[in-house]
Amino acid sequence: MEQIVNIGVVGIGNMGSAHGMSLYKNKVKGCKLVAVCDSDEKRLQWAKSNLKGVKCFNDYHELINSGIVNAIVVATPHPMHPVIVEEACKNGIHVLTEKPAGVDVKTVAHMNQVAKESGVVFSIMYNQRTNPLYTELRRVFQNGDLGQLVRFNWIINNWYRTDAYYASGDWRATWDGEGGGVLMNQCPHNLDIWQWITGMPIRIRAFCHKGLFHPIDVEDSAEIFAEYENGAIGIFQTSTGEYPGTNRMEISGTRGKAVIENGKLTITLLKEDLMEYTKNSKEFMPKIDVDERTIIQEEPESAHIGILQNFSNAIRKGEPLLSPGEEGIYGLSLANAAYLSWWKNDFVNLPLDEDEYLHFLQSIKNSNHEKHIKTLCEDGSYGEYSNRWKVKW
Amino acid sequence: MEQIVNIGVVGIGNMGSAHGMSLYKNKVKGCKLVAVCDSDEKRLQWAKSNLKGVKCFNDYHELINSGIVNAIVVATPHPMHPVIVEEACKNGIHVLTEKPAGVDVKTVAHMNQVAKESGVVFSIMYNQRTNPLYTELRRVFQNGDLGQLVRFNWIINNWYRTDAYYASGDWRATWDGEGGGVLMNQCPHNLDIWQWITGMPIRIRAFCHKGLFHPIDVEDSAEIFAEYENGAIGIFQTSTGEYPGTNRMEISGTRGKAVIENGKLTITLLKEDLMEYTKNSKEFMPKIDVDERTIIQEEPESAHIGILQNFSNAIRKGEPLLSPGEEGIYGLSLANAAYLSWWKNDFVNLPLDEDEYLHFLQSIKNSNHEKHIKTLCEDGSYGEYSNRWKVKW
Repeated sequence: MEQIVNIGVVGIGNMGSAHGMSLYKNKVKGCKLVAVCDSDEKRLQWAKSNLKGVKCFNDYHELINSGIVNAIVVATPHPMHPVIVEEACKNGIHVLTEKPAGVDVKTVAHMNQVAKESGVVFSIMYNQRTNPLYTELRRVFQNGDLGQLVRFNWIINNWYRTDAYYASGDWRATWDGEGGGVLMNQCPHNLDIWQWITGMPIRIRAFCHKGLFHPIDVEDSAEIFAEYENGAIGIFQTSTGEYPGTNRMEISGTRGKAVIENGKLTITLLKEDLMEYTKNSKEFMPKIDVDERTIIQEEPESAHIGILQNFSNAIRKGEPLLSPGEEGIYGLSLANAAYLSWWKNDFVNLPLDEDEYLHFLQSIKNSNHEKHIKTLCEDGSYGEYSNRWKVKW
Repeated sequence: MEQIVNIGVVGIGNMGSAHGMSLYKNKVKGCKLVAVCDSDEKRLQWAKSNLKGVKCFNDYHELINSGIVNAIVVATPHPMHPVIVEEACKNGIHVLTEKPAGVDVKTVAHMNQVAKESGVVFSIMYNQRTNPLYTELRRVFQNGDLGQLVRFNWIINNWYRTDAYYASGDWRATWDGEGGGVLMNQCPHNLDIWQWITGMPIRIRAFCHKGLFHPIDVEDSAEIFAEYENGAIGIFQTSTGEYPGTNRMEISGTRGKAVIENGKLTITLLKEDLMEYTKNSKEFMPKIDVDERTIIQEEPESAHIGILQNFSNAIRKGEPLLSPGEEGIYGLSLANAAYLSWWKNDFVNLPLDEDEYLHFLQSIKNSNHEKHIKTLCEDGSYGEYSNRWKVKW
């Protein structure tokens, strides 16, 4: 039988404590939580009370070099993800990082190289990839049922947040702490699912809006306009200032269209490719026969547990990763490109010029003001997965 | 009793012949069709066979000066609308023009001035303003139920057209003949309804795509990104190359949201203004109580007949116009601004610089190529309203 994975969690704030508790309660087969790490003494106190028998570290180097873990989960603030991933890789420790992969593409590309050379299992917590509707739409699109891509559209603004949320951590909604706003904190899943289904566009023009709804120096509203190599168009809209908000994805292809909204995937397929039909039809605005089918999400996705289980299986049995760590760079590229387009007030080509991005990011950080709101309160729900991290319809 | 309006129709192609037949069949109270005009002998032959007793002209000057009409409907190719409207106004003839008001804002502004000075009743065929869902959404938005505008979004691409359609007239889909593509031919209603509900944005950044789906030199796909004075955002997407396409309008405000799709208006209202809630709530991502109501369009809108009847009532009884001719400039401004933004690859402010637009339009016309497709066939359905001119869900 395969060996048990002895796992450590680095960073046990909101997200990491939930991963820690899942592992502690043996919700992930083949894994055992043996260590946690946090620089905050209060969080370690929580761990000592709630994760009996698990070794606590306040320095991640010590955890990695402790000899008691052969895998870690990284759930620190974003800028630390690549740093810790690289150290784990260099020590032969398998690693699952929280999203986003990092805050800038250059650093993440370097991390990917280090991970590749190390040969460890490297995954990223894109838990929304376990959603059955996104999975089915990806399958249908990628096997060609929808034909060539014509248009991708995602209105994803059911990310409402109050000012109190933004005040709940000094790092929140700052260029230093998160490397951006809604695109870096709320939307990494959406940006990943977008490219996971359609592949990457070749250029981006984005409009971001600094503190449109909240007193913050990063964007809390953004629209991304994208172009694909074949001329297809992508539009992505998000904000944290609308209620109840909308989560509606639409893909239009040369053989049909698909819409996901309210937990329901509707696929409408043509019987032939529309491009040929457009050329050959003698009618002007014909009514064309279509087949329509609807798939309703009956069960919640396996989410974080699913990704943790897949990580465990990959280590123990060589199961292919659902969410390889190297793929974190794609969604991040979309976010970085959106910021660069905003700052330059122009189109930005993909793949992104990594150095140019870093240069602009540094200028923005240097000109960054203090956050306009004081820390008000702390989120008390540790050790549990929040519904906000699941797909919300 | 009020006098009967003796009406002439100038241009009896697809649209004009349908208006002519409606009037001929007395579907519009208080009006009598007494004259038609077309420069095409075949169309006049059709009129002689189908509109017995109606006087036929091949020159609109003669019709206007005939002394037998006191109102006209203009249904010629777009560039002629302002020319004929002005001549009618100067002769004291009431006038209802087809959309768009013209092809450029400067000419239309001049027309509006002439119409105003003349004192005649001047209306424009924005038949989609009679749709009960748009009417109700406008009422709800404009009386403040949705609060301040946050975001307007319209995916309106159920305008599928074949290449045969584009080949059905030399003027179709050319800069000379129509002054543009999908934004000038298919979308005038949508651009009007957009501004009719929300008012005008203050700047536009648009992406238009020349012949993405068809061999034409004008755009058959466009995305308009708009900003309003209060920071609200508008996104408008259209094309004639997708099937089955989508017609989905969404308005997000500080007190709720509204969606129109599939002949159904859904309004979701908050109990207080979200901006205050965002500031004052101690929760981070609260679930907020909302009221939702749904309105289904049970009956078809009165459409063209409704606008014709309103025109007649305005002349005879002073009834306020549902669609005053002067308001045609707003939707046209959005289309013109979209083109100018495309050509300049930059934002364009509204109100538009009329002379700059004319300058660019002339350059585009000069560089315009021949249409890539030959005229294939003619549309044989004269004298009837086509479903394509109604709101399509």
